[in-house]
Amino acid sequence: MVEALEEPGSISPFFNPKSVAVIGASSKQKKIGYVIAKNFIESFTAKLFLINPNAQEILSHKCYPDISSVPENVDLAVIAVPAKSVKEVLEECGKKGVKAAVVISSGFRESGKEGAGMEEELVRISRKYHLRIMGPNCMGVFSSTSMVDTLFIPRYRLKRPPQGKIAFISQSGASGIAFLDWAAGERIGISKFASYGNAADIDEADLLEFLARDEETKVIAMYLEGVKEGRKFAKIAREVTKEKPVIVLKSGITESGAKAALSHTGSLSGTDEIFNAVVKQTGMIRVYDWEEMFDIARALAYQPAARGNRVAVITNGGGAGVMIADELEKHGMTIAKLSEKTVAELEMNFPPHVTLHNPMDLGGDADNERFREALGAVIDDDSVDSLILTCIPHTPTIDLESFVDMVVDTKGKNDKPLVVCLPGGRVSLEIRELFEENGIPTYPTPARAALSLSALVRYGGLKNSG
Amino acid sequence: MVEALEEPGSISPFFNPKSVAVIGASSKQKKIGYVIAKNFIESFTAKLFLINPNAQEILSHKCYPDISSVPENVDLAVIAVPAKSVKEVLEECGKKGVKAAVVISSGFRESGKEGAGMEEELVRISRKYHLRIMGPNCMGVFSSTSMVDTLFIPRYRLKRPPQGKIAFISQSGASGIAFLDWAAGERIGISKFASYGNAADIDEADLLEFLARDEETKVIAMYLEGVKEGRKFAKIAREVTKEKPVIVLKSGITESGAKAALSHTGSLSGTDEIFNAVVKQTGMIRVYDWEEMFDIARALAYQPAARGNRVAVITNGGGAGVMIADELEKHGMTIAKLSEKTVAELEMNFPPHVTLHNPMDLGGDADNERFREALGAVIDDDSVDSLILTCIPHTPTIDLESFVDMVVDTKGKNDKPLVVCLPGGRVSLEIRELFEENGIPTYPTPARAALSLSALVRYGGLKNSG
Repeated sequence: MVEALEEPGSISPFFNPKSVAVIGASSKQKKIGYVIAKNFIESFTAKLFLINPNAQEILSHKCYPDISSVPENVDLAVIAVPAKSVKEVLEECGKKGVKAAVVISSGFRESGKEGAGMEEELVRISRKYHLRIMGPNCMGVFSSTSMVDTLFIPRYRLKRPPQGKIAFISQSGASGIAFLDWAAGERIGISKFASYGNAADIDEADLLEFLARDEETKVIAMYLEGVKEGRKFAKIAREVTKEKPVIVLKSGITESGAKAALSHTGSLSGTDEIFNAVVKQTGMIRVYDWEEMFDIARALAYQPAARGNRVAVITNGGGAGVMIADELEKHGMTIAKLSEKTVAELEMNFPPHVTLHNPMDLGGDADNERFREALGAVIDDDSVDSLILTCIPHTPTIDLESFVDMVVDTKGKNDKPLVVCLPGGRVSLEIRELFEENGIPTYPTPARAALSLSALVRYGGLKNSG
Repeated sequence: MVEALEEPGSISPFFNPKSVAVIGASSKQKKIGYVIAKNFIESFTAKLFLINPNAQEILSHKCYPDISSVPENVDLAVIAVPAKSVKEVLEECGKKGVKAAVVISSGFRESGKEGAGMEEELVRISRKYHLRIMGPNCMGVFSSTSMVDTLFIPRYRLKRPPQGKIAFISQSGASGIAFLDWAAGERIGISKFASYGNAADIDEADLLEFLARDEETKVIAMYLEGVKEGRKFAKIAREVTKEKPVIVLKSGITESGAKAALSHTGSLSGTDEIFNAVVKQTGMIRVYDWEEMFDIARALAYQPAARGNRVAVITNGGGAGVMIADELEKHGMTIAKLSEKTVAELEMNFPPHVTLHNPMDLGGDADNERFREALGAVIDDDSVDSLILTCIPHTPTIDLESFVDMVVDTKGKNDKPLVVCLPGGRVSLEIRELFEENGIPTYPTPARAALSLSALVRYGGLKNSG
């Protein structure tokens, strides 16, 4: 077996280490070092070493007094010791030849001048030993495939999401938790997660660059309050969006928000005009709320980019059709004019009260068969680039289970993106899950469905122009 | 017992009839007349008469051949017969002295010129007999107290929402269903619901006027594609908003949407500028999506209006604080400057890493007690008009169940509105329900929490100016 060569200083060992040491592992349930050790013991399958000078064993796992006592190579060190001890521990890691260190500990730049000085020293050690650092003051990393998991929230409070194609980078740990919890709750797959905290060494641009080449990742989503090095970030983002879509949620937009950001992560938010110019120039997709980010990420993860902006809408509830038409136009899309062939074909089989132009209102009495015929004809219509299918699933003529099958059968046909809008809060929620499991992004409102489709259209536009 | 006098032509018999006749009741499970009869039999406690000339009994309930054979007075007739028979049936209702009729049947103005003529005849009969009509081509009415329920969606597909303070009026039946399903799913209380279809007689303005005086209703929400009589609507809406808040979702905004609306409900949407002027002039609150409508309705139903626009934000996740600050400023609110007394009081008890200015970041290690102290001090601060409490509920220091109690205990204190933001999709969802049951409106994202609070601030502004 030939092992892939890894360039020195690569970020890869954070996500795919062959061996991990947890420094500051603890047997006290309330401690961060306990939660992290437990996570690794439960699901990490490669080599694991726990480090604690005052314990023989933790959770029935042998303990080493320090990293230099570990008898094998260590790729990744997870450091959860008090701030004042981090320097010494990191120096030992460097000597040991550790490639990557997640520094969970806080009490550095975010806490004032003295902490900033201590952070500088960590950077010096990092350079000296080619030891890459994530943090300090961060949640660290999670990989759904290798099960590296430095998140210090117990799993009974934060269920980990399943494997999938969305990577998420967060400057804020709490925002990261919120995102992961959402993904777990809605069973949306995540490839990799990184909360990089103070970004003493690795910053958002480095992570972007790494994830662009990551085969497990199809979409990159990020939460930022500020950017460490604007020029570097813009340069890398522009390259990355050629490979895969990048969604960015940047807060600290208003005067009040910028002030709050300064006291939260010490970020200088910069003016929103400048950031918007960067977004435009790089082809990233900007969102303003977690829900938008999540909605769009799902669309980009599951569906192909659109070849154009002509959208067909199929519905059994006229009101939803009107609202979707409004939203599509707001986001710069157009209501496709269906071909004469499509209209003629459907006219023969459908009762006269069905609206055959777009938005196509199949009527409150539409059954699965009517939806199937409409969907089939429209997806084959060359004047249509993408589709929104809306169903008020409460009418008894719809057979819910086979409705999902019927839609899923058309998935990927003619490489046209399809999103579903299922209004309501109960019946709708149940079948929404079935759709998601089958790669059909599904939304409870016209506005959210249209916004998500717009990302597929915009990303398609970027790819076509590139 | 003295009965309240009811003015002739009142809308009240639609929601509180002493007796109901279902005309077109059916024993065939797929028929609308079956579903409606079943709904009434299951939960309506006043007098019920089923009318069908071809049946002796339906669902073990005696049938009458026509309404004139019913031996008692009938307040409300629910008509679910083919369009061409409606005229004759309605004439009989008039002769019988029926006060109100819901005409479910479609095939009138929405279907073309002939249908429009038939609709004119219904209006003539309505005038002649002082018989008020809801519809035709509608879902009709639902009252959570009297259990009048003409919705022809079976209850296994559309669970009915619990009793509560939100009334909902919808021009579109399907939008109405979506709203009710949401309410049922999230256990949000509804007082009355009306889908008025073609508005041959009763229109949105009549319903608004009626609901303004309805003691069960605290908030009115409406979905419109067009307004039947602009001047009348504006005049009534202006009066109604002095009594209670009115939320309006108007679609058919864009050229595409307006075209779709014309073919859906035959509505002339009018220009959006004009509608916006009406919204401003009348003090209604305009929303653009069902989710916004629902979010805002909950806030207005549960919480008092704000006396001013100075908001305090308390959080254990800095990122959420930054995002909320952004959103508050976007919506014209300001971040309250906390009084020196408040800051001094909290400074004594809190560790140094807590951010004491607003947004107040209690730190990732905040426990219930820290939240309780902060909340108590801030709610008593005269420089604060309202509060947003955000909690990342995943950290193990938060005891979830008692956290809800702790927040609920402050409800209504100093008459200051409070909304909660609980990010995430699993743990958050569970405690969100507990909050809602206790009248604390709770949202999964900063944007939705801030938007909802802004409605309480805007409505407070309207009341203060009025």
